[in-house]
Amino acid sequence: MAYKKLVELQTTLQNHQIDVAYLSDPMTIKYLTGFGSDPYERILALIVFPDQDPFLFGPALEVEAIKGTGWPYSVYGYLDHEQPFAMIAEQIKKRLPDPHQIATEQNYLTVSRQRALQEQFPHAKFDHDLTQTIEHMRLIKSADEIEKLKIAGQWADFAFETGFKAVQIGRTEQEISAEIEYALKKKGIMEMSFDTLIQVGPHAAEPHGETSTNQVQNNELVLFDLGTVYDGYVSDASRTIAVGTLSDRQKEIYQVCLEAQLTAQAAAKPGITAAELDKIARDVIDQAGYGEYFIHRLGHGMGMSDHEFPSIMEGNDLVLEPGMCFSIEPGIYIPGFAGVRIEDCIVITPDGNEPFTHMTKELQYFG
Amino acid sequence: MAYKKLVELQTTLQNHQIDVAYLSDPMTIKYLTGFGSDPYERILALIVFPDQDPFLFGPALEVEAIKGTGWPYSVYGYLDHEQPFAMIAEQIKKRLPDPHQIATEQNYLTVSRQRALQEQFPHAKFDHDLTQTIEHMRLIKSADEIEKLKIAGQWADFAFETGFKAVQIGRTEQEISAEIEYALKKKGIMEMSFDTLIQVGPHAAEPHGETSTNQVQNNELVLFDLGTVYDGYVSDASRTIAVGTLSDRQKEIYQVCLEAQLTAQAAAKPGITAAELDKIARDVIDQAGYGEYFIHRLGHGMGMSDHEFPSIMEGNDLVLEPGMCFSIEPGIYIPGFAGVRIEDCIVITPDGNEPFTHMTKELQYFG
Repeated sequence: MAYKKLVELQTTLQNHQIDVAYLSDPMTIKYLTGFGSDPYERILALIVFPDQDPFLFGPALEVEAIKGTGWPYSVYGYLDHEQPFAMIAEQIKKRLPDPHQIATEQNYLTVSRQRALQEQFPHAKFDHDLTQTIEHMRLIKSADEIEKLKIAGQWADFAFETGFKAVQIGRTEQEISAEIEYALKKKGIMEMSFDTLIQVGPHAAEPHGETSTNQVQNNELVLFDLGTVYDGYVSDASRTIAVGTLSDRQKEIYQVCLEAQLTAQAAAKPGITAAELDKIARDVIDQAGYGEYFIHRLGHGMGMSDHEFPSIMEGNDLVLEPGMCFSIEPGIYIPGFAGVRIEDCIVITPDGNEPFTHMTKELQYFG
Repeated sequence: MAYKKLVELQTTLQNHQIDVAYLSDPMTIKYLTGFGSDPYERILALIVFPDQDPFLFGPALEVEAIKGTGWPYSVYGYLDHEQPFAMIAEQIKKRLPDPHQIATEQNYLTVSRQRALQEQFPHAKFDHDLTQTIEHMRLIKSADEIEKLKIAGQWADFAFETGFKAVQIGRTEQEISAEIEYALKKKGIMEMSFDTLIQVGPHAAEPHGETSTNQVQNNELVLFDLGTVYDGYVSDASRTIAVGTLSDRQKEIYQVCLEAQLTAQAAAKPGITAAELDKIARDVIDQAGYGEYFIHRLGHGMGMSDHEFPSIMEGNDLVLEPGMCFSIEPGIYIPGFAGVRIEDCIVITPDGNEPFTHMTKELQYFG
């Protein structure tokens, strides 16, 4: 059925004696209702009760779009000069005059908005945090979600193909990025999951740098990190390619990074923990003597965004299960010399895992 | 001097007996320090004291970039498996062993993170909200900021030129958007301030719709709403153009919307309130009989984002002052028929205002 996840949440509310859930993370709302929209500073909220119909509340501008998704329950709009929290409270009180336990998403809700809600319900308790409940629901992807992630991954592969062909000595990182996004947009893929990152040579040693006017040089590595959005689900992948002739050291860091990536990807299966997987990749790089240059976690969860659970890092004892989706992206960043990162996102399957991107990871030469 | 705004904030802290300010909105951090970065789920914080040097705290990945901006004070990085709030508290306690009043940005800080901070300082008070202090600082733009907004506006004009030329019967909204962003990216303008919106005919009656595969048709209006980012400052403008021959009713809604926009823009000067300005535009549309189709506020503040203060709407009695920057964007949206929106962002000057975009607002025909 269409709103299966909402029903699951209602069961949680019943089990925890929660009277009302106030959900306000746009990703949660998209996940539970199918309606995706960023309200920016405006209020968009999904109100769920343990045993009554939920309702949506948002900017008047969005009401038609919400109805257009087929949302079968009530939806209320407010105009910019109106008082959204008073209006939400009025609708809640119509259904439940005196709620005692109001649960929220404390990782998303701001201190100000929690106070505005509390003013409407001065006798209610706001202790219960639904963040983990929702994260846990979102952690295991459904077949339908995995299908979207695969399509987003295919578009990332298309982006690599386009981008690699655009590599020419003298061309800037920004020009190559422009070619990639233009080719995608012409195919109707309008949104990248993050700013496309292309870094030439030593610039790639800054893993959080930006695509710049640096030009492709001969005998350098070029790092690509990119992702697309398909129907609200993202892809995220990295490849590093070569232009001209590489030195032994450039080749070595590439091969070490590749081995770390392949070893970890081969080890990703149900039963291993996130921390163990991180260590498998890290050990490869440590043993090759480059440990100090691998300065971030092995990976991050992904799905509706590329910033969700599980985090693949030291200290995370979460045991991997089928349906979990995350990146495996070791990197070696040697300041002033070069940077390499190789990344696929995968879904854990009963037997192992399946990647969403398929572009070869063997070192390729272009330009 | 470089960190004038930080010194201004320190004075506020002194005046309010605040011991420590914990600032975490990335826009605030960019505004006060010049370092702009979205840390997503990671922690990035600027800690300011009334009479000691501030420090920055963020992901280890970002430390070099922070230093690269010339930041002359301390900066501390953390790795993903470390405990950022304990580390921040340690640095604060080195400078001030027992702070009593810790001020935060309550419109940005989440309930979870406030709790994490409180756990480090169980005896401190967290009542003081700096949201309005920062908003007030950001409300009046400096000459330097206005210069960046003008350049961002020039790129929006360039985007309109490119987009209008790309209009052809049969072309999709998405294809036109692709041409605009490709042309910008080739010029090094890599970021739009929001998803470029192009809507043909009746589709434009959904003011929060999305750029789609709808094709340009003869005898229709086409709405463009777009903006660029230049050095952390945005542009945002809308134009509606014609393809083929328009009906009297299409022409009428265009002219009514234009009159509302021009009348409001002419009236925008120091001394008038935001609500009065909204009403000036609304009255024009009301008197022409289209009031029910103008379903949003007249405008929003802009600067580092297109979602800041002042909000130009009913109920906002803020008196406009030189240096305030905002959009003037009346719209008429008739479901199933057509939508028109015409928008410039302006800065209030001592005598009136100056727009950031200059593309003609007279009805133009393309395609």
